[in-house]
Amino acid sequence: MDSDALCQKLGYIFSRPELLRQALTHRSHSLPHNERLEFLGDSVLNCAVAALIFRNFPNLTEGSLSRVRANLVNQQSLAELAQSLELGKLISFGEGELKSGGDRRPSILADALEAVLGAIYLDSGFAQAEKVVTALFAPSLQDWDAQTQGKDPKTLLQEYLQSRKLALPVYSVTATSGEAHQQQFTVECMIPKPDIRTVGEGPSRRSAEQEAAKRAYEQLLSQG
Amino acid sequence: MDSDALCQKLGYIFSRPELLRQALTHRSHSLPHNERLEFLGDSVLNCAVAALIFRNFPNLTEGSLSRVRANLVNQQSLAELAQSLELGKLISFGEGELKSGGDRRPSILADALEAVLGAIYLDSGFAQAEKVVTALFAPSLQDWDAQTQGKDPKTLLQEYLQSRKLALPVYSVTATSGEAHQQQFTVECMIPKPDIRTVGEGPSRRSAEQEAAKRAYEQLLSQG
Repeated sequence: MDSDALCQKLGYIFSRPELLRQALTHRSHSLPHNERLEFLGDSVLNCAVAALIFRNFPNLTEGSLSRVRANLVNQQSLAELAQSLELGKLISFGEGELKSGGDRRPSILADALEAVLGAIYLDSGFAQAEKVVTALFAPSLQDWDAQTQGKDPKTLLQEYLQSRKLALPVYSVTATSGEAHQQQFTVECMIPKPDIRTVGEGPSRRSAEQEAAKRAYEQLLSQG
Repeated sequence: MDSDALCQKLGYIFSRPELLRQALTHRSHSLPHNERLEFLGDSVLNCAVAALIFRNFPNLTEGSLSRVRANLVNQQSLAELAQSLELGKLISFGEGELKSGGDRRPSILADALEAVLGAIYLDSGFAQAEKVVTALFAPSLQDWDAQTQGKDPKTLLQEYLQSRKLALPVYSVTATSGEAHQQQFTVECMIPKPDIRTVGEGPSRRSAEQEAAKRAYEQLLSQG
């Protein structure tokens, strides 16, 4: 395993390989190490993932988008990605850090992956780094998408709860308004565990239920 | 003042003006409002500023870069930029929000500016949004740069403290090591107010003092 193999996995070849070398140099080894690149890469990563989920989830609110991102991008998920790229073997450590297992420490792996993204940004700009991020996170996003394809929210919500042996939602009409021919229904969706209550509105009881179910399902997903 | 004037100030013309319109629609007005664009724009802004200060401050550590960014990008600085762009007059509000002074509320102005940056990203990609961010923050960065041009750290630190009528730093050698011809000095720089203690090392007392002064000065600047 050398850095060529890494570049192949990332789908990116460095014009300035010294940037990749710096990204893979832990501060215990020597200067220039990867801490400044990690600062940059962290921002690049957060921005690229923000754009990715903004496009993938056109119906999620701002708050849900934040939660989805926090579930996708965290030390554990980054360390797992770094492991799948076998990054640990490529990082240069000082002797002490290596002996104490630095090459398997999740925080170090996650930081190095961020630094690599920072290095790609410096090497050729945001668009290239964004491509790499999109490829890295595509599998996790597909898992999410697969859960929602072609099913209505009430069905999705029910299947989700059943698969986790949780109690099913209870829907109740909490308000109606308007004349008989143009009534507006308000429905509450209640899930006992995890405790979620959402409200939906619509011109029929069914449509209000679907709206409330959709919001409950989005909350469940964004809680991860 | 219309949105053409805004585009002129930003140095950016939208291909899809509806994106700008959405960025300038508060949720009190109508859908689609600017909250999702704000989520996106917040990330774009943070990433663009990270890159800007990464390049402008090649000697700052990761921690100092974070502090510099936090000082440059916050609700107050964004609201001030939004005010200089006269953004408040362009935002569409619901009647209640407008009556209660929404067009002058710092959080709303800051959010709208972020949303505009998100809209630029969607309209034509990160590089364009980055250009706009760089132009917006250039004056604040110049203020910082001017303070550091061509002066050594001890002088900069002394001038900074004198200009604020604060007590001058005290330097003391806390350790020496090595043979006489290749000694290594450790110097502590102490400032009573704000309470800052930094340490510098070097092959001479003077170089260790400069190193300690540099760190103290960076801390002062990043505290803003």
